[in-house]
Amino acid sequence: MKVKKLKFILKKIFNKYGLNDNHANISSEALINAELVGAHSHGLSRLKMYCDRIDKKVINPKPKIKIKKISHSISHIDADNCIGFVAADVGINIAIKNARKTGIGFVGVKNSGHYGLSGYYAERAVKKGLIAMIFTNAPPAIAPHGSLKSVFGTNPICFGSPTGSKIPFILDTSMSMINRGKIRVAARNNKKIPNGVALDKFGNLTNNPLKALAGVQLPIASYRGSGLAWMVDILSGVLTGSNHAGKVKDPFDDFTGPQNVGHLFITFKTNLFIKNYNNRIKENLRIIKNLPKIKGVKKILYPGQNKYKRFVMNSKKEIKLSKTIKKDLKFLNV
Amino acid sequence: MKVKKLKFILKKIFNKYGLNDNHANISSEALINAELVGAHSHGLSRLKMYCDRIDKKVINPKPKIKIKKISHSISHIDADNCIGFVAADVGINIAIKNARKTGIGFVGVKNSGHYGLSGYYAERAVKKGLIAMIFTNAPPAIAPHGSLKSVFGTNPICFGSPTGSKIPFILDTSMSMINRGKIRVAARNNKKIPNGVALDKFGNLTNNPLKALAGVQLPIASYRGSGLAWMVDILSGVLTGSNHAGKVKDPFDDFTGPQNVGHLFITFKTNLFIKNYNNRIKENLRIIKNLPKIKGVKKILYPGQNKYKRFVMNSKKEIKLSKTIKKDLKFLNV
Repeated sequence: MKVKKLKFILKKIFNKYGLNDNHANISSEALINAELVGAHSHGLSRLKMYCDRIDKKVINPKPKIKIKKISHSISHIDADNCIGFVAADVGINIAIKNARKTGIGFVGVKNSGHYGLSGYYAERAVKKGLIAMIFTNAPPAIAPHGSLKSVFGTNPICFGSPTGSKIPFILDTSMSMINRGKIRVAARNNKKIPNGVALDKFGNLTNNPLKALAGVQLPIASYRGSGLAWMVDILSGVLTGSNHAGKVKDPFDDFTGPQNVGHLFITFKTNLFIKNYNNRIKENLRIIKNLPKIKGVKKILYPGQNKYKRFVMNSKKEIKLSKTIKKDLKFLNV
Repeated sequence: MKVKKLKFILKKIFNKYGLNDNHANISSEALINAELVGAHSHGLSRLKMYCDRIDKKVINPKPKIKIKKISHSISHIDADNCIGFVAADVGINIAIKNARKTGIGFVGVKNSGHYGLSGYYAERAVKKGLIAMIFTNAPPAIAPHGSLKSVFGTNPICFGSPTGSKIPFILDTSMSMINRGKIRVAARNNKKIPNGVALDKFGNLTNNPLKALAGVQLPIASYRGSGLAWMVDILSGVLTGSNHAGKVKDPFDDFTGPQNVGHLFITFKTNLFIKNYNNRIKENLRIIKNLPKIKGVKKILYPGQNKYKRFVMNSKKEIKLSKTIKKDLKFLNV
């Protein structure tokens, strides 16, 4: 389907579910971006879930978002359980505004929901010439080191920086061995997941996506990844006034209340300490990209390069819709 | 040797090498702390290296440290190639001061050197009731994903938070599978390193510490760890005006000039967004520590608990000195 047509349909669906034009537009663009960068697990496969949550009154389609200014740099947002895309849009916009005014933006968001890809918001700051660090928690997926119960979400660490070129440096890395969304997609399509990325509920390795969803995902790098996921839970959950320690609800399975996901957006100017950041990072990337390569490796890529390439390539084509997605769109767009 | 006696000797040595009383005190305490928390690779095993670097005029014992105030939150420090401990001491103190004044401290340091353990400085902020995130780069140790040459340092990510108890949450995690200092200690003591943590210079796995030092260390979690180490290089090196992209000199092997390591200290108040941070994090830790455990695991620990336990235990005893350390102390303290 052409992007334009898809966007028209998505906006119509979100409008139908009670979102105003602006919020429907923000949400449609975020979903389409996920498809264009190839992050299908964060794209249209989640559309029905968002609509279901609005239907069951655990996403508020008409939020009264409260923005509390703590200082010219620091703001706190109560997103009133709106769709995560809108909460994150407000969050990153204020973080950008604050950083442009004072050099740093520091914005906590509470009462939000799943907002898709952190990297999408980091890109927004980078386009304004800023560096961004973004933290969000998520429903239980990873077991803390030593435990047999999932508590931490995939809790990504996201870092974006201008590069002096049109392709930004966007690191957006989950703290789990595998993205929970990818396990869901595998489950929906009856496919296996790789070995070594998840345990079943008894603590045994599994490559069955359904057993993995009922069990625990393994953190990257053992206790180190567990510690980093814990840090993200503290920064995005404990600090912002959001759910934490495993209390963020699973958006697909748990309709007993809003998710209350938390986000933290930290943004800052690149030239706070020096005058030639763009030249310096250009040199950094040039040196590293020109290193001797391991046999079989064609190019050394910096984080974000692959995604950018996919985005450009996919933007020229129609978006391919799976059978399930087609069914969802037909069902929701009546 | 008793801590008091060791401190007396270390101060005398640093004084002899030209450090003033205050700087000698700061440096001695940092080295002793590393021993007390059991991080021997960051402790006395580095003393001779620091002295050698002063001797060869690549550490400046009489620095004129310049502090540039960018805003009430943001400061930039030119450490004038002083010993890293002193640069980090100034950096964290200003970051603490700024955060207490405005809510956030954001301090970049350039022309510094190896400062020991990031966690040691995070603890200082936590003791003042602040959260700290600390980034530093280091001499080449990890090969970027896809390359056959070490460029990134072990580039730790450090995060500290108050916990409402006397044991702080201190995550201080290297981006390499093994600490470079541990490989050095193994080399000095003719011991092997574990499998799977390093490649020799031809790209083959090795457990010979000397071959590993000549080869490359593997990042945690493959491309994810490589991306995180790259982020740390950008934050601490590119942003602050320090060396980056593999140009930080190895303090043990390269006496052709100062290291020009960079650090970034980010500090902030815990109650920016909420009023009960300590209660919230106490609840977070309580829930996670009480999770069902994997068979054989006695306790789930948060980052920093083990280190604190070692510190308390070791503080009651004399510090054990290896033969090599005794030789170094004797040689330096003439």
